[in-house]
Amino acid sequence: MPETIETILSRRSIRQFKEEEAVEDKDIKTILETARWAPSGLNNQPWKFIVIKNKETMKELADCTHYSKVILNAPLLIAVYLDTETMYNKTKDIQAIGASIQNMLLACCDLGLGAVWLGEILNQEDKVNLILNCPDTVELMAVLAIGKPAENGKETSRKELEQIIYNEKYGEKY
Amino acid sequence: MPETIETILSRRSIRQFKEEEAVEDKDIKTILETARWAPSGLNNQPWKFIVIKNKETMKELADCTHYSKVILNAPLLIAVYLDTETMYNKTKDIQAIGASIQNMLLACCDLGLGAVWLGEILNQEDKVNLILNCPDTVELMAVLAIGKPAENGKETSRKELEQIIYNEKYGEKY
Repeated sequence: MPETIETILSRRSIRQFKEEEAVEDKDIKTILETARWAPSGLNNQPWKFIVIKNKETMKELADCTHYSKVILNAPLLIAVYLDTETMYNKTKDIQAIGASIQNMLLACCDLGLGAVWLGEILNQEDKVNLILNCPDTVELMAVLAIGKPAENGKETSRKELEQIIYNEKYGEKY
Repeated sequence: MPETIETILSRRSIRQFKEEEAVEDKDIKTILETARWAPSGLNNQPWKFIVIKNKETMKELADCTHYSKVILNAPLLIAVYLDTETMYNKTKDIQAIGASIQNMLLACCDLGLGAVWLGEILNQEDKVNLILNCPDTVELMAVLAIGKPAENGKETSRKELEQIIYNEKYGEKY
């Protein structure tokens, strides 16, 4: 199987990291490069990213989510923002953000890193934005926790293709 | 450079296809598998996909967009929908759709196929939904045009990392 497809199909969320092992700066840069090269409508690139390694900041962010253990255990966080000043169509811009996040998750696999996409923290967006000094013009989209994996990732499953794919018209069996 | 990262960085939109060369069914299945394995919040998988190869349907869809040439030239379209009945948080669900689209685009590269993500067609969502017999419970998110590439893809660019990345707090130079 070609390698990219293999990476896509085998990627799993990693929530436990080797806490003492930092992510190398060159790997962080590569991850950010893959985010940057995601496609976006009209190539407007409606994203901003904050790279967080400071343990004090992480402690503050841990108070903003039920998944504080993941945050505290990770050597690296990347906060992902939608820049409403570059926005042209909210639906398409949020899709583009999703594409850029997926690029980063796949890049982590390729670099031997583990990662998890945290969304529940959006419930405390205001608090997160205060901690990270964010202006009103940006909206928190996700936080990625990244590090050397200390677990294999849980078994997970997906709906069968037959449940989500149609042939030619909606509702017609593929 | 690891192969997945290479694919992410080198992927370009392809808008011209070898019209007479169909995409093989096994490749279509692989593309859909990569869509299916995208991550989503609470693993809710809020997506539906319609695989379109029928030329009559394509002619009708071509009337719904300024990019009719791309639609008419492609041997395969995949219409991507958000299933509002499986939705739990619209922002996160639309991000997940973006991740699944990006998986398909990357899978196409890996299979030697070209693809382009069409968003402008959303302006005529009602017409598209009529053509594809879609219920009111789903929202059109994108249409992908896919085929054997008949061009290399246009040169494109991205903002510099310095314009989109911050260090520790918003606005601080990375």
